[in-house]
Order: sequence, then C-alpha cells, then structure tokens
Amino acid sequence: MTLAELAAFVGGTIEGGSPDAPVTGVSSLHDALPGDVSFLANPRYARQLASTKATAVFVASGADVRPPEAGGALVRVDSPDGAFAKTVPLFTVPPPVRKPGIHPSAVVDPSAKIGKDVHVGPLSVIGPGAVIGDRCVIEAHVVVADGAVVGDDCHLYPMVSIRERCRIGSRVTIHNGTVIGADGFGYETKVGPTGIEVKKIPQLGIVEIGDDVEIGANATIDRARFGATVIGAHTKIDNLVQIGHNVRTGPYCGIVSQVGIAGSTHLGTGVMIWGQAGLAGHLTIADGVEILAHAGVAGDLLAPGQYLGAPALPKRDALRVFHAPRAVERLKEQVAALEAKVKALEQR
Amino acid sequence: MTLAELAAFVGGTIEGGSPDAPVTGVSSLHDALPGDVSFLANPRYARQLASTKATAVFVASGADVRPPEAGGALVRVDSPDGAFAKTVPLFTVPPPVRKPGIHPSAVVDPSAKIGKDVHVGPLSVIGPGAVIGDRCVIEAHVVVADGAVVGDDCHLYPMVSIRERCRIGSRVTIHNGTVIGADGFGYETKVGPTGIEVKKIPQLGIVEIGDDVEIGANATIDRARFGATVIGAHTKIDNLVQIGHNVRTGPYCGIVSQVGIAGSTHLGTGVMIWGQAGLAGHLTIADGVEILAHAGVAGDLLAPGQYLGAPALPKRDALRVFHAPRAVERLKEQVAALEAKVKALEQR
Amino acid sequence: MTLAELAAFVGGTIEGGSPDAPVTGVSSLHDALPGDVSFLANPRYARQLASTKATAVFVASGADVRPPEAGGALVRVDSPDGAFAKTVPLFTVPPPVRKPGIHPSAVVDPSAKIGKDVHVGPLSVIGPGAVIGDRCVIEAHVVVADGAVVGDDCHLYPMVSIRERCRIGSRVTIHNGTVIGADGFGYETKVGPTGIEVKKIPQLGIVEIGDDVEIGANATIDRARFGATVIGAHTKIDNLVQIGHNVRTGPYCGIVSQVGIAGSTHLGTGVMIWGQAGLAGHLTIADGVEILAHAGVAGDLLAPGQYLGAPALPKRDALRVFHAPRAVERLKEQVAALEAKVKALEQR
Repeated sequence: MTLAELAAFVGGTIEGGSPDAPVTGVSSLHDALPGDVSFLANPRYARQLASTKATAVFVASGADVRPPEAGGALVRVDSPDGAFAKTVPLFTVPPPVRKPGIHPSAVVDPSAKIGKDVHVGPLSVIGPGAVIGDRCVIEAHVVVADGAVVGDDCHLYPMVSIRERCRIGSRVTIHNGTVIGADGFGYETKVGPTGIEVKKIPQLGIVEIGDDVEIGANATIDRARFGATVIGAHTKIDNLVQIGHNVRTGPYCGIVSQVGIAGSTHLGTGVMIWGQAGLAGHLTIADGVEILAHAGVAGDLLAPGQYLGAPALPKRDALRVFHAPRAVERLKEQVAALEAKVKALEQR
Repeated sequence: MTLAELAAFVGGTIEGGSPDAPVTGVSSLHDALPGDVSFLANPRYARQLASTKATAVFVASGADVRPPEAGGALVRVDSPDGAFAKTVPLFTVPPPVRKPGIHPSAVVDPSAKIGKDVHVGPLSVIGPGAVIGDRCVIEAHVVVADGAVVGDDCHLYPMVSIRERCRIGSRVTIHNGTVIGADGFGYETKVGPTGIEVKKIPQLGIVEIGDDVEIGANATIDRARFGATVIGAHTKIDNLVQIGHNVRTGPYCGIVSQVGIAGSTHLGTGVMIWGQAGLAGHLTIADGVEILAHAGVAGDLLAPGQYLGAPALPKRDALRVFHAPRAVERLKEQVAALEAKVKALEQR
Repeated sequence: MTLAELAAFVGGTIEGGSPDAPVTGVSSLHDALPGDVSFLANPRYARQLASTKATAVFVASGADVRPPEAGGALVRVDSPDGAFAKTVPLFTVPPPVRKPGIHPSAVVDPSAKIGKDVHVGPLSVIGPGAVIGDRCVIEAHVVVADGAVVGDDCHLYPMVSIRERCRIGSRVTIHNGTVIGADGFGYETKVGPTGIEVKKIPQLGIVEIGDDVEIGANATIDRARFGATVIGAHTKIDNLVQIGHNVRTGPYCGIVSQVGIAGSTHLGTGVMIWGQAGLAGHLTIADGVEILAHAGVAGDLLAPGQYLGAPALPKRDALRVFHAPRAVERLKEQVAALEAKVKALEQR
C-alpha cells in the first residue's frame, strides 16, 4: 500500500511526504519506523510528531501542526484516532482463536468439571475436583491442580500453574509461567537443644482472584497462611511481580513489573504501583495511593497521592531528599565564606 | 459452628461478642475477617487484638486484655496457641496426598533410577541417568535432566526444571517454575579485527542443594562455571530469587523474594537477606549478617548485625544517611542566621 | 590424580605443596576449594593467589609470585591459561548432546515446518505454522506457538514459551522458563458513567530476537503493542530480566539479572546494564552507556560512561551524593564552631 492509497482508504488529504511511499505497518509516534502509519490525537504529543520517523501521521483537519522533520507526511482527517483504528487491521494479525475441545494429549481427571465450549490445549493437566468455567481457553502446558476453580471466559497461557483449591474469577487472563498459590514464605526459627531449628509454618489458605483481572508472565502470587490472598476485581498485574501470602488488593489496582509486596499488606481501591517498587509486610496502603518506580515502602501510606524514594516519602519530600546533595554543595561554599569573614573579624 | 460451640470445643469461656455468631475460619489477628477465629499468645500483639476483625480470639485465662473494638469475643483458655492448633483442622484442608506410582504419561528414561514409593505425576520427564530418591513426590510437568540426582523425601512442584547433573539433597521442596542449574552469565568481550567479539564462557559446573532446603516459585539458581553453586542445608529461599554462579550459602540462611546475589559471593551461616536486596559478586558475608529489604550491598560485610541502604551500611550509619536531608534543612537555617549576624558584626 | 601427576601432565615444575596431594577439580582462584587446580594469568589477581585454597595453581615460569598461604602449590608452566585449558576436560563433563529426531510424545502441528537435523524433546509443542530452523535443539517441555519462527542452530531449554508469531534469529540460546512475547502491560483507564472502566490496549505486535543472542532463565520479553520489541544481535540477557513492549536494544548489549526496562525505551550499541537496575519507559540510552547495579534511570542518558544511583547520575555526581551525608557531619561541626566564635565576637 502506498501513502496515496492509505489517504484514499481513510478519506484524508496528504500534506508533505511522497504519495508513492510504501506504508507497511502501524505504530505510536515514538516507536514508529519508516513505513509506519501513526496518529496525533492529543496535542500534548506534538513534540513527538516533529521527531517521529513515521511515513504518515493522521492529524485533525484543522490542527496547527507541520509534517515530521524526518520527511513523513501528514494525512489530515476528521478523526485521527478513528482513521488509525480503521487502518490497524490492515497491518496486524489478531491473536489465534482456540476452538472448543480437549486435546487428546491433555490429562483431565475424571472428577474435574469442564464447562461448555472450553478449549484445553495439548499436554495440559486438570486435576481431581478442579472446575473450569464456560468458554475458557486453557492453552497447552497448563496445570490446574486439585480442587482449583476457574470462572467463565478465562484465558490461561502455557506454563501457568494454578495450585490446589485456588479460585480464579471470570474473564481473567494469566500469561505464561505465572504461579498462583505456591506456599508463602513462613518459618519459625528457634535455637533448640541440638542447635538451630527451622520449622515450616504450614500455608493452608488459598489465592482468590477477582473478575476481570489480568496477570503477566512469570509472576508469583502466594497462597495465604490461613484464609485467602485476595486480588481485587479489575486489578492488573505485570510480569515478574511477587505478591506475598495474605496480601489483599482492592479493585482497580495496577501493579507494574518486578514489584514485590510482602505478606499481609493490604491495598485499597485504585492503588497504582510502578516498576520494581517494594512494599514491606503488614502495611495499609490507602485508596488512590500511587507509588513511583523503584520506591521502597516501609510504613503505612494513609493519604492518597504520589510517593517516591526508599524509604518512600510524599513526592515533595522525596524531591527535597534528592536535592539535598546540591544544597550541601551550596552550604559548603557559604560556610567557607563565613569562616573567612569570622577569621577577619577575629583579627580586627 | 457458632461462637458458643467453639468455646465448648476448646473448653473456654466467652467474654464479649455474641454466642450465636457464626465461626467460619481461622486467621492471624492482623489478617482476620468477620467469622475468623484468632489467638493472642504473645502480649506484644495486644494492639492487634484491639483492632482485629476476628469474631473470636483465644486469650490466656488471666490475660489483662479486653475484647476487640470491632465487637468480637475473647475466648479465655489455658493455652491460646494450643486451642488455636486444635481449631485449625476444623477450618482448613491439608495439601493433597500423592500416592506412589508413575503416571503413564510421564516420560522416564530407562536408565533413570527411581527410588521406592516415588510419585511421578502426569507428563513429567526424568532424563537419562537421573536418580530420584525414595518417597519423592515429583508432581506433573517437572523436568529432571540428564544425570541429575534428587535425594529422599523431596517434593518438586509443576514446571520445576532440574538441569543436567545438579544434585538436590533430601527433604528438599521446590515450588513451581523454579530453575536449578541454568547457565551462569559469563562472557568474554574483545574488540577483534572484525569488530566486537562476545565469547561465551562455558558453564561446566553444577548446583548442589543441601538437605532440608525449601525454594519458592520462579526462582533461578545458576550452575557454577566450575565446581558447584552451593545452597547450604536448612536454607530457605523465596520466590523470584536469583542466585548467581559459584555462590555459596552457609546453612540456615533465609533469602526473601526478589533478592539477587551475583556470582561467587559467599554467605556464612544464618545470613538473612530481606526482599529485593542485591549483592554484588565476589563478596564475603559473615555469619549472622542481616541485610534489610531493598539494600544494595557493594562490599564485604565481615561483622554480624543489620545492614541497610544502597550502598548498604551498618543500620546506625544508614539511618544517619536517611536523616541527612533533615539535617541539611537545619543547617540552612543555622547558616542563614550566622550570615546575618556576621553581616551585623562587620557593619559595627 | 596427584599434584605430581598433574605437573607431569602439563610439563610444569612444582613449587611448594605436597606432590602426593590429590587433585580433583578445577576452579577460579577465588572459588577454589582444596583439591582444585586454578591458574594465574593476569598479575592483577596476584592477591587472590595469596588467599586461594586451591591445591595447585598454574603460574608463568618467570612470575614473581609465591605459593598460596593456605599451603597449595605453584605449578610453573610456559602458559598458565593453556595448561588450565588442557586440564579442564579432565575434571568436567560437557553438556548432554541431543540427537536429531522428534520424540514421539511431542505434539507437532502438521502445518509446522521443522528443519534438518532438529531435535524436539519429549512433550514439546510446536504450533500451527511455526517454523524451526536447521539443527535446532528444542528440549522437553517447550511451547513454540502459532506462526513463531526460530532460526538455525538455536537451543531452547525446557519450559520456554515462544508466543505467537515471534521471530527468533539463528544461534540463539534461551534458558528454562523464559517467556518471549507475552502481552505488554497496557490499559486505558477512564471514569465512565458506571464508574471506573479499565480497557485493555490490544498488544498486536511481536518480539524479534537477533542472531547470537542468549537469554537466561525465567526472563520475560513482552510483545510490542504494534510492530516489534527488538533484541539486537549478540545481546546477552540474564535471568529474571523484564523487557517491556516496544523496547529496542542495539547489538552487543549486556543486561544482567533482575533488570527491568519499561516500554518503548531504546538502547544503543554495547549498552551494559548491571543487576537490578530499572529503566523508565520512552527513554533513549546512548551507545556505550554502562548503568551500574541497582540504579534507577528516570531520564535519557545521551553520553557514554558509567551511571549510578536512583535517580541515576554520572558516576562522579552519584559518588558526591553518596558522600553528602559525611559532608553534612563535617558541616555540622563547622557551623557549631562558627556559632561559638560569632557569639564570642558579639560579646566583645
């Protein structure tokens, strides 16, 4: 497809670029490479428009913008995101569709209950007493252990483990390699008559995952010591996240890659935690708290707002910490000047 | 079961609450929800008693405590933890028992040696020359590679990989998705006549895991370049931990989730490392060192005690670092006051 | 083998130690245990020679060094690393060789294309339309999903997932449990008439991995929103690393364990990132940048050199930050002394 054909397809007018330029893909302005079509809907990203390598960018008819510096074209349309949405299917492939049916190589225990129109892929294992809801897609190489319950319309990718008796809501997606319900980390250490004794504390609870949750790849959510580790509905969890035993998250939380939340910490509604942040155990995190990347949270956060640093502080205080070294440099100069002046005064 | 029935079951007397209140589970004071039974054995947690949502809390007959503020009852007994231990089985389910036997879908190499009363679950692979000790439970979807040796009474959960020739002690538990013995990260980089050349350093050693070790989910312990990466007996490792090649831990260490230990670092006995801490390579960490969460350890730690921060310092010094910004604020005020005074003196 | 036999084997002369001492393995100077043979090629490591526990150390004939303090011997040879390379095979076992052939328990879709001399291990799944290049080793328990393409001479270890349509170059090694091509973390959150609405942003792109890449265990590399997440040729990635959607790395990068790189960040050539560092999204990291362990990178790094701390700064500036608390202590003393002097002046 050429730029000219693309403009005709969306009913737009070209500004700049070359009408014969080949168009081969779609992208965001930042990520675009030559051949890509992108769009500018929000004027906030106008700077990205200037530097994009896209071959064509949909912009609003009346937008006060110029073509990208790298030589791409503007395609003026009534609705830039509408035109983009219409273009995306030309250059992308939807995910594979899994047809209902149980692959003959899957090992499904006779006591498991499988809902209607379920797909169970090759070599998956559905254990004794497990329940799989209607229209679920259980891909290849998934293990749903004894007595675990999966709701309707879930999608479990390869290498996912759902451990014994854990409960997954409906419309839940779990990506490859994630482990739901391994034992929490709990031991009692004593010095006994024969030396150190480390005794495992049995982890007898489960994990309960609400509806409409999505969990990334290779994450781990530990079963509770007693009761349940709870992930609230509509919460989204990224890759390699660790959720300790008896953690409870509210609904609508977002937990980004490599975050760790230690045992028995409770998150409110809509808590957002960015990459690599860590939360100590037994904390209370209020509704609407946002914990920024790489933070280390050692105490309760009871007011909404942004927190930063290790130990994490309200953003304003954390920035003061970050700027302290510069203040020290200024203080050194001020103190040296004072010392000279005082010496001079003393010698008078 | 009602509160009254529970009190009768343990031979206790009720104080506060409602005798007809339903009792449905067990929990810690902090995690308890209405319906739960909990206990207070250590007076240190008396504050948690006040705020718990538990319906019933076992406390010692003579304890000077009042019922929870949320309306739950005290149940006074001779031994609160004894009463709790007696109650737990009423409300919890023990882990599934795996019977001895090899599932027909497992792929066990004819040259592998399988001990007595071993369970091998569906679709697991036991490679050529591998050895599995007596009474082991190898769950579904485990791969024990060529020549690996697993001791007696081990429990390997689904998706565990034991790579070639690694040696696991007895009574070792490894949770889902953990990888024992992948190659360490080692390359030689040179600028040769044709440009950069990156050459892999072969990783020819193994991993040796001592007796009574437990390892969480999705952790990685790399094989040594030569010799062995060693995990000492009774050491406990949490989820998503990374242990580099040629690391050696002493016995009785504890390594919490998302910790990373770089290559050839050696830990003494009873070293405790809390979540997300990182240790550089080639370090020596003495017996009894405790590294707090999120710390970054860049040098040897040769004295026992607590270490904190990045770069990690003895706790007292680290706290001084954390408080430095506040000291800077005070210094600014002091210096401004001094400047004014000196100016006044100069003008006299 | 005895020390004397070892010396004869490499044609060296013994200095110190006992000729009958048993020799049982090979190691680096730092990691060596009694019984090990090691070598000193670079005089920089002479201090390690003094403290090594090795039984024998190859050193250059004329090197000005003395035997290890622990009682090991020097074995003087013309080429210490040559002698070591000759000795290594005596004490190490090469990795298992996988013969060409498809295990009968593997599930290979009839529409998949399998190259010449490919090994497919037990219970692996090769999906519809997938392509496996010549001489690849696909170990047990690997899933290559629909339409994924793997080049020639690749080695995929157990529990690896290659998601739909991702493209792997030639001579690529991926260790156990790594996930290539799970969905990136992308959602749109709106407050609609019925409350919060969280809408998934479809992740329609792929992952493209260049030639000669190696990736460790349990790492995750997310598929792009559109287009491709790209790992440059010869780049080496360690265990538990997270690479977000639309990240692009140049060739010859090194990314050490537990690093996280957020979406759409672009790395130049030869970028080195040490353990547990985190990079925010949408950043540009220049050729030759080295990011030290545990750093948190929040902005573009446009000049080569070393960066440290969180937020990461050029190493010199970061060290000033680390030393600021000590400067504060000195300032406190200076200010106290000044206050006393000014008071004295005022009282004159």
